[in-house]
Amino acid sequence: MNNKTITPRDVDFAKWYTDIVKAAKLCAYSSVKGCTVMEPNGYAIWEKMQEILDKKFKELGHVNVQMPLLIPESLLKKESELVNGFAPEVAWVTHGGEKPLEERLCIRPTSETMFCDYYKDHVSSYRDLPKLYNQWCSVLRWEKETRPFLRSREILWQEGHTIHETEDEAKEETARMMEVYKWFHHEILAIPSITGLKTEKEKFAGAEYTLTNEALMYNGVALQAGTSHYFGQKFSKAYDVKFLNKDNNLEYVYQTSWGTTTRMIGGIIMVHSDDKGLVLPPRIAPKQVVIIPIGKDEKVINKANEINEELNSNGITTYIDNSDKTPGFKFAEAEVNGIPLRIEIGPRDMENNKITFARRDTSEKYVEDLNINISEYVSNLLEVIQKDMYERAKERRDKLTFEAHNITDMERILNTQPGFIKADWCGNPECEARVKEIKGCKSRCILENEKLIDGKCVVCGNDAKYHVIWGIQY
Amino acid sequence: MNNKTITPRDVDFAKWYTDIVKAAKLCAYSSVKGCTVMEPNGYAIWEKMQEILDKKFKELGHVNVQMPLLIPESLLKKESELVNGFAPEVAWVTHGGEKPLEERLCIRPTSETMFCDYYKDHVSSYRDLPKLYNQWCSVLRWEKETRPFLRSREILWQEGHTIHETEDEAKEETARMMEVYKWFHHEILAIPSITGLKTEKEKFAGAEYTLTNEALMYNGVALQAGTSHYFGQKFSKAYDVKFLNKDNNLEYVYQTSWGTTTRMIGGIIMVHSDDKGLVLPPRIAPKQVVIIPIGKDEKVINKANEINEELNSNGITTYIDNSDKTPGFKFAEAEVNGIPLRIEIGPRDMENNKITFARRDTSEKYVEDLNINISEYVSNLLEVIQKDMYERAKERRDKLTFEAHNITDMERILNTQPGFIKADWCGNPECEARVKEIKGCKSRCILENEKLIDGKCVVCGNDAKYHVIWGIQY
Repeated sequence: MNNKTITPRDVDFAKWYTDIVKAAKLCAYSSVKGCTVMEPNGYAIWEKMQEILDKKFKELGHVNVQMPLLIPESLLKKESELVNGFAPEVAWVTHGGEKPLEERLCIRPTSETMFCDYYKDHVSSYRDLPKLYNQWCSVLRWEKETRPFLRSREILWQEGHTIHETEDEAKEETARMMEVYKWFHHEILAIPSITGLKTEKEKFAGAEYTLTNEALMYNGVALQAGTSHYFGQKFSKAYDVKFLNKDNNLEYVYQTSWGTTTRMIGGIIMVHSDDKGLVLPPRIAPKQVVIIPIGKDEKVINKANEINEELNSNGITTYIDNSDKTPGFKFAEAEVNGIPLRIEIGPRDMENNKITFARRDTSEKYVEDLNINISEYVSNLLEVIQKDMYERAKERRDKLTFEAHNITDMERILNTQPGFIKADWCGNPECEARVKEIKGCKSRCILENEKLIDGKCVVCGNDAKYHVIWGIQY
Repeated sequence: MNNKTITPRDVDFAKWYTDIVKAAKLCAYSSVKGCTVMEPNGYAIWEKMQEILDKKFKELGHVNVQMPLLIPESLLKKESELVNGFAPEVAWVTHGGEKPLEERLCIRPTSETMFCDYYKDHVSSYRDLPKLYNQWCSVLRWEKETRPFLRSREILWQEGHTIHETEDEAKEETARMMEVYKWFHHEILAIPSITGLKTEKEKFAGAEYTLTNEALMYNGVALQAGTSHYFGQKFSKAYDVKFLNKDNNLEYVYQTSWGTTTRMIGGIIMVHSDDKGLVLPPRIAPKQVVIIPIGKDEKVINKANEINEELNSNGITTYIDNSDKTPGFKFAEAEVNGIPLRIEIGPRDMENNKITFARRDTSEKYVEDLNINISEYVSNLLEVIQKDMYERAKERRDKLTFEAHNITDMERILNTQPGFIKADWCGNPECEARVKEIKGCKSRCILENEKLIDGKCVVCGNDAKYHVIWGIQY
């Protein structure tokens, strides 16, 4: 572990990213092409994400289930007809043991199929509704290029699949879950994401509409981190999921799905981290504080243990680095791993009744009296760090948010410094396609509640219908 | 949901089992042959198991990781040569998208391969050891016959894979994790399991030795529920996992693995449940108490809500059934779902200042004064239920534990009422094979710390070496 192995962010962003992943031991390449190993440091972040999101899902009435990993081809095809096909990008199981299978099975790329197949046999009346089911699992897509957390053949994620009695209720669920993702990004990940509606071109093909949560990375590239789909009755008609409604008529259920993945870890890296390594917002950090005693003085060690216990008993996750390494090495290790706050205490500090706090995000150091209420002090400081990280990310995002009034603006911006580009759009897919010719820039989302900028489509100049955020994506 | 749909346990045990699974909505068959859907009620038990075990693993210093789902054939074969081959029972992926793969990949049947492949590149010195890694995931084995929770193509489990500097340390880990499983069964699942050593024939083929946790079901059939293997250097030599030891010599690491699965849910059903449905020990019940208000009287509802809040705030998981169903239906539903304790409160109770508690395990009812300290009362009662369930399970196990002194004894017992059979054994695999001819009865485990019964092998009559537990298994 050595900070010098990290390529500076401004020199080569892509290299910097993979260097951070490696140096902070988040994820490693494996002998299986396109698949990675989530190492303890990376998986601990995912566990923390799961813990917080799962609690929120359950507060809203959701329950977890586990569907089979494998989907028979005939079942998947029902979906493929609808959504234009995951088939070209799934992994096919053709043999069980030494025998060829009668029908090949794919490893799930997503589980709409399996949920519908289950609901079909387990819902008969409006009394059985809603079903608010979620699943934590991995899915597989046969991606060609892979990048840790951002694009991988196997992805860890959660997929919520709910069915409802009415259109309104399902639409409310779609919006409510997008609010959860937004809350998670803003309050927990300190990422000022933007939520909005996908265009027809960019929505999930099987959905009536798709809501999306879009974050902007330090380099101005956008990351889609959480989508919520309203399916209406599209899937329920294809898979025959019916119920007897309150008027005693058979009706197809109204459906939603929503999901988010480990790519959020990639988002944290690319929004917050720096040339010294990972920087984690305190609320998502598996370990919030490291205590580093300087030297082997018994009094110092005892004090460090005392502080460790006090902080832990107050709900702050801390650890002591009592290893044989040098203080400098320990500092660097905690830095590269993104521990939000470091506490240093040495023999001279003890004599002077002092203790030192060092912030990971700003490198600021505070020397305080050893007799302060340390739990309160640390709690407050962690909250300040969380807030400051959000504010800095927002400042960066705002700095990289531009307005374009015509296609020349668009080209100039994208060729200078990519970012979120706000521009009006007439709604014509041809104009959308024209923008995509510029470095693959896509519509990120339609901001339904924002006024038009100048009322003219950024491409054709005709009357605009939508205020859209555009950007280059991961 | 109707108790009458449950076949009596003493009439047809196998049918009773699947009836419970269905009636309590634990698990459902899917359109994928051999794979099941874990429904909310079943998955919630697994989540509770994960929560308790994961906390314990972490207290002991373990961390979680995620290895790839797929294993290249060449890598698996290294293991196959060693352990005699999972190859006949794995699912093979041969196509990614529409293209045939250059090398086929199997879906992991277990992950020794992947852990070794990772460790090989990430361990170089004794300073990197131990690595105490665990993984929660699903594995696939191409089973022919399947039964919910007990045998299924896809199994949810945890697999710990640790590597150590010394033989002693790895052996300690092997024993320590078996103690964890034993603790979990006795203290949490109220199942008086027996732990011991597998014979050479029954151990995991790649292991130096295997420790096992064996439980006895109500019908006298044994269930292996948790094993812990000491690998020594077998895998580290096959996969070349070396480190520089303290003497500065290259050495192969010492390895363990240990795992347990959702089949423990099958164990809970078959040890504790009855003809009215599931019975759950309070410590593993996702919902410990149901409060059923009788009628719609506002005072009653308010009191029920008040009790619900008080219990919840004291760490007891409760819920109110405020649905439109009749009280009788609600009672039956809570019974079939195995909620350990039911609280009933109606208008007449309110007038008389009374409240009723009904135990799921014994059907006993207690009418108490409404002014008791209800949290304390319920906590105590749940502990009594937990303890009583353990005692009854132990009584049943002891009743179905027999001693055999010769093969005639063995045959008589197994043909009358299967159970745990204690008998001495000389250590000759031929004698072990002879026992297996009787209804497939196998050695469950060697009790290393127990004295021999009469010192003669139950089969050949020669001098015995081991006190062994035998039994028919799931």
